[in-house]
Amino acid sequence: MTTHVSVLGLGMMGSALATALLKAGHHVTVWNRSPARTGPLVAQGALPAGTPAEAAAASPLVVVCLLTDDTVHEVFDTLGDVTGKTLVNLTNGTPAQARELAARAADHGAHYLDGGIMAVPQMIAGPHAYVFYSGDEQAYETHRATLAAFGGTKWTGTDPGRAALYDLALLTGMYGMVVGVLQAFALVRTEHISAEEFSELLVPWVTAMLASAPEMGRAIDTGQHLTDVSSLAVNQAAFPNFTATFRDQGVSPELFVPFQALLDRAIAEGHAADGLSRLADLLTVER
Amino acid sequence: MTTHVSVLGLGMMGSALATALLKAGHHVTVWNRSPARTGPLVAQGALPAGTPAEAAAASPLVVVCLLTDDTVHEVFDTLGDVTGKTLVNLTNGTPAQARELAARAADHGAHYLDGGIMAVPQMIAGPHAYVFYSGDEQAYETHRATLAAFGGTKWTGTDPGRAALYDLALLTGMYGMVVGVLQAFALVRTEHISAEEFSELLVPWVTAMLASAPEMGRAIDTGQHLTDVSSLAVNQAAFPNFTATFRDQGVSPELFVPFQALLDRAIAEGHAADGLSRLADLLTVER
Ligand SMILES: NC(=O)c1ccc[n+]([C@@H]2O[C@H](COP(=O)([O-])OP(=O)(O)OC[C@H]3O[C@@H](n4cnc5c(N)ncnc54)[C@H](OP(=O)(O)O)[C@@H]3O)[C@@H](O)[C@H]2O)c1
Ligand SMILES: NC(=O)c1ccc[n+]([C@@H]2O[C@H](COP(=O)([O-])OP(=O)(O)OC[C@H]3O[C@@H](n4cnc5c(N)ncnc54)[C@H](OP(=O)(O)O)[C@@H]3O)[C@@H](O)[C@H]2O)c1
Repeated sequence: MTTHVSVLGLGMMGSALATALLKAGHHVTVWNRSPARTGPLVAQGALPAGTPAEAAAASPLVVVCLLTDDTVHEVFDTLGDVTGKTLVNLTNGTPAQARELAARAADHGAHYLDGGIMAVPQMIAGPHAYVFYSGDEQAYETHRATLAAFGGTKWTGTDPGRAALYDLALLTGMYGMVVGVLQAFALVRTEHISAEEFSELLVPWVTAMLASAPEMGRAIDTGQHLTDVSSLAVNQAAFPNFTATFRDQGVSPELFVPFQALLDRAIAEGHAADGLSRLADLLTVER
Repeated sequence: MTTHVSVLGLGMMGSALATALLKAGHHVTVWNRSPARTGPLVAQGALPAGTPAEAAAASPLVVVCLLTDDTVHEVFDTLGDVTGKTLVNLTNGTPAQARELAARAADHGAHYLDGGIMAVPQMIAGPHAYVFYSGDEQAYETHRATLAAFGGTKWTGTDPGRAALYDLALLTGMYGMVVGVLQAFALVRTEHISAEEFSELLVPWVTAMLASAPEMGRAIDTGQHLTDVSSLAVNQAAFPNFTATFRDQGVSPELFVPFQALLDRAIAEGHAADGLSRLADLLTVER
């Protein structure tokens, strides 16, 4: 079903979202702080709006994708009458920020959905992209088919902060992976090994090791961390080889220093025979 | 072809290696500091040796898998006459340590191979396990078929340190991934979400994001870091949401603090429009 949608924010992601809505046949109104960015969308059939209020007035569904929560608040301040509209905020934020925006939207008689986009802009509308949503369930049901233009839709609950929690947790996993990959690349580059070629070894290896994540998850859920795979003691014994090699090769060990400290702490607390899953417990401050 | 092989060290990994050799039909002699660990291997047909020297005397091919390089030196001290034998050290170590062991072996008239095992013990002899080798190429060719009992064999070069470099680089990638996964699990557990269930979202997501590793590698190889996917500026803008949420939820941000500092440094150095690949350059101390 074709509907009217406004998109506020046409950065790399907002532009991809607006394009996906246009491709799905919707009537799309766009606004961006720097007007130049509306050009490519207008060329695809979008209507440009001169202000956030003008954009919001054009549609019952208003999608916001800006840089930060601060920016979202600034733009919210200028939206005018949003009574009865649904505001969908896809800007990266915290659960607490989402709850605050939901309260603000409610004060203005608007429905609020918070979302976490699990995709890079190039993946939007493709088979692997999806978005977590939380907040106003009725608004979600009403607009779900439209929001499906971005990719899959995953409902996480009526706590507006829930989508952000899922989003941040998945991105946390990604950042860890990225840190490992970048450090590995930096290391092999010191021996003039091509990082791109090395990725042919690295990607299958990390993928294979990722297969142990469900098992680590089960250990964390159940508190049964004893392992016959690779104990914290074995990891602790090997770890100085990493920091020494980073130093020998001229690579900064800065991203791995706290991991070694955590390993040492876990062993000092008596967990030498446990697997790496035990470390998640030590990261939890309020146990 | 059936041959005689000795295995020194019967920890989780050494036991898996000895078992694989037995299953491949070889005559296997085993030694371990704590004699109790020889039991299960002897039950499978291995011959127990009372000392490292007795074990080494039994075979032309001696595989060593101990906890640390220090331990390997201790055991080397007691090996007796190893003239003409091939010593294969599969203990985790640094490139420098491998080169030193190679020199020591040469002093004693032995051939030296250093190896890096890309598998957990449970994967040994399975389809996904492989071992990097470096050092004495002739010895590698002579014993390659026997060493194939552990899994694939990958030759990395005559510099004895090369296998350790590859090994440590891949494990570095793994540690990054593990850090991300554990932190993500710690975060969702604060909301009583099952970590094992969450892994059903986390594993496909991290796998999908891993697909960008070759592209990051190419950026590092070529020095072309400009991106239209996700700039350092976007990552920097979002990062306080992670540390704030970790704190709000009672999860220690300790493993991610240096990553944020690196992001900030990259942007201070003028790389805001570049992708995350740029960070690998900043990790390289001797640029
Ligand atoms: N890129 C990704 O891979 C990705 C993936 C998932 C989620 N996200 C999230 O999506 C959001 C947008 O990311 P992006 O990649 O599109 O970033 P971007 O390309 O840097 O775009 C940022 C957008 O925010 C606007 N903006 C910044 N400050 C503003 C202000 N004070 N007032 C009004 N507008 C302002 C910019 O307007 P101007 O054009 O005027 O500067 C632009 O439209 C972020 O929260 C990001 O974390 C991005
Ligand atoms: N487990 C893995 O997933 C894995 C994967 C790849 C590589 N590796 C590497 O393989 C090596 C062995 O790991 P593992 O998992 O088998 O460790 P492990 O189960 O802890 O076994 C350690 C072995 O080292 C011996 N050892 C320790 N200190 C010694 C000493 N001072 N003198 C003589 N022997 C000593 C132990 O003998 P006792 O039985 O007498 O204590 C035991 O045989 C390590 O370098 C590890 O990094 C392990």
